[in-house]
Amino acid sequence: MSTYSIGIDIGATNTDIGLVRNDGTVMGHHILKTQEYEQTDAYIRDITHGIRQLMQGHAISAIDGIGIGAPNANFFNGCIEENTVNLRIKERIPLRALLTESFQVPIVVDNDANAAAYGEHIYGGAKEMRHFIMLTLGTGVGSGIVIDNQILHGHTGTAGELGHAIVNPMGRRCHCGRIGCIEAYACAQGICDNYIEEWKKGEIKPLLEPEDVSTVTCQFIGESAVKGDPLAMKAYDTTAYWLGIALANAAAFSAPEAIFLMGGPTRAGEALMKPLRHYFEEHLLYIYKGKISVQLSLLNSNDAAILGAAALSKLIY
Amino acid sequence: MSTYSIGIDIGATNTDIGLVRNDGTVMGHHILKTQEYEQTDAYIRDITHGIRQLMQGHAISAIDGIGIGAPNANFFNGCIEENTVNLRIKERIPLRALLTESFQVPIVVDNDANAAAYGEHIYGGAKEMRHFIMLTLGTGVGSGIVIDNQILHGHTGTAGELGHAIVNPMGRRCHCGRIGCIEAYACAQGICDNYIEEWKKGEIKPLLEPEDVSTVTCQFIGESAVKGDPLAMKAYDTTAYWLGIALANAAAFSAPEAIFLMGGPTRAGEALMKPLRHYFEEHLLYIYKGKISVQLSLLNSNDAAILGAAALSKLIY
Repeated sequence: MSTYSIGIDIGATNTDIGLVRNDGTVMGHHILKTQEYEQTDAYIRDITHGIRQLMQGHAISAIDGIGIGAPNANFFNGCIEENTVNLRIKERIPLRALLTESFQVPIVVDNDANAAAYGEHIYGGAKEMRHFIMLTLGTGVGSGIVIDNQILHGHTGTAGELGHAIVNPMGRRCHCGRIGCIEAYACAQGICDNYIEEWKKGEIKPLLEPEDVSTVTCQFIGESAVKGDPLAMKAYDTTAYWLGIALANAAAFSAPEAIFLMGGPTRAGEALMKPLRHYFEEHLLYIYKGKISVQLSLLNSNDAAILGAAALSKLIY
Repeated sequence: MSTYSIGIDIGATNTDIGLVRNDGTVMGHHILKTQEYEQTDAYIRDITHGIRQLMQGHAISAIDGIGIGAPNANFFNGCIEENTVNLRIKERIPLRALLTESFQVPIVVDNDANAAAYGEHIYGGAKEMRHFIMLTLGTGVGSGIVIDNQILHGHTGTAGELGHAIVNPMGRRCHCGRIGCIEAYACAQGICDNYIEEWKKGEIKPLLEPEDVSTVTCQFIGESAVKGDPLAMKAYDTTAYWLGIALANAAAFSAPEAIFLMGGPTRAGEALMKPLRHYFEEHLLYIYKGKISVQLSLLNSNDAAILGAAALSKLIY
C-alpha cells in the first residue's frame, strides 16, 4: 500500500503545498500567494483547506506527516519566528501547533537547506547515507548537514551555515558584511562577480561578449560555460577553487560519505563540477582523499523543495 | 558507592594506565614503557597485569569500563591500526577484542583528541553540554567534536580534523604538506614561527632577547607572553587571529555551546585567550554572536589524558 506525506514550501511569492507519494512522486500541488496573507489565522485556514483539497482530489484518507520548509524556521519550537523578511505576517507563526489541531500526524518545520538535505536523504541520492552534506547555491549559499541520519541543528538550532565559512580572509565582501565567505564566490551574484572581474582584466576573450555589466547574469554565465565559453568557464573555475577549499574543510569536520550540490548555479553541470572535484581533492587532507564524493543532487529541481519539505516529516526526533 | 573506570593513555614513551574514580579523581597509575614492546601478546599481558595490580592495590573488585586513547586508533573496530608511527609493534593491535577476554566491561578505543573531548564532557567543563568542540594544541592541533552527547566519527571514522582546516590558502606550509592549515599557526612550532617571523622584522623589541632562533621554544614564548613581553604577545596574537577565524568557521558548522582548548601552548592563558575571544567574535556570523563561549579546559593538565581515556568507556554506542 502506498502512503503519502504533505510537503509545504513557503517562499516569498508562493506557498506551495504538495502531496507526495512515498516513492517520491509529487501527486499534486495547491498554491497560495504568500503575500496575500497578513493574518496567521487566515493563512493556517487556507493551508489546512489546501491539504484537505489535495487529499480529497486524490481520494486519500490519511497522510503520514507534514513537513514544512520555511524562512526563519525554528525546528525546536515548530514556528516561523517573528519579523521574517518576505512575509507580511510579522508575528511568530506557530505552524506546528496550529496545524496539529487539524492533522494528528508528525509535523516538522525547518529551513529550506535542511529540507533540501533531508529530501536527498529520503528521495534522492543520499538514501543509504548516514553522513552527508547538502549545499544549496542560489541567491545565497545554504547548507544542511546530516550526521548519523539526523539533521544537525546544534546548540543554537542554527547549525550548518557553511555558506558563511570564511575561506579568503583578504578577499571579497559577503552579503553578511564579513570578508571572504564562500557565499561571496559561489552564490549567483558571486559567480557574476567572478565573471565581471575576469572580463575587465581582458585577458580571456568570451565567445559571446555581454553588452554591458548589467546583462551579466548567472544564467547567462552558466549557459555560456556549458557551450565552452572560456570566460564563463573561468568564472566557474574561480567558484570551484574557493568552494573546493570550503568543502575540503567541511570534510575535515564531519568526514561525510558525500557532499551534494543543488540550485540554479549548478545547472552549469560539469563546468562547475569538474574543476570543483579537482580543487576539492587537491585541498583534501590525505586521510580523506578518494573517500568523499562531490555530486549533484539527484532530485528533479522542479520538485526538490516540495520533496525536501515532505522528507522533513520523516525525521525521527 | 563509588565506582571506577580504567583510562589508558598510549603515548610514544609511556603507556599510562590510570584508575579513575567516577568523581574524576585519578587514584593511581601503572606505567609501561611503550618502546619495550615488539609483540602484541606481551603488551596485552602487561596491560592486563597493570589493571589487575591497580585494582588490587585499591581493593577494588569491579570496574565500569576501560577507555583507551591511542594514536592511529580505530573507534569502529577497537584496534590500533597497523604501521603506527612511534610504536614498535607494527601489526594491527585488536585492543578491545584482546582486553575483553580478561575484562567483561565496555571497552572503547579512540584517538587522543576525541578522548580529551569526552574527558571534558564527563569530568570537566562540558558536563552539561550536548554540543561542543575540544581543540588540543601541541606538536599538532587535534580536535574532538561532540554532537548530541556523541563523539563525531563520521562516515570514514576520522572526523574532527579541525587542525587541518585551511584558513590562509596563500599562507604558511603545514606539517601535512598543504598550505594554510590552522595547525601551521597554532601548534607549538607554529607559535615559534610567528615569533621568529616577527622578531626578524625587528619592529617589536622583546623584553628578553633570545640568543638565537634555536632557543625560541613555545614554552619560552608562553612564559614571556605571561610576563607581558610584547613580541611574545604578538606571536600569540597572530595565532589567535587565525584560530579565531577557524573557530568561527567551526561554529558555523555545528553551532556548539562552547569551544574548549587544552595543551601546552594554552598555558599562556589570557595572552592567548583574550585576543582569541576578540578575533572569534569579530569573525563570527551575526546569528552566533554572544552565544558560543571559548574557554580553557577545566581538566588538570597532568590528569587530562587519563581522564579523557577513562571517559571514553562512558560512551553510549
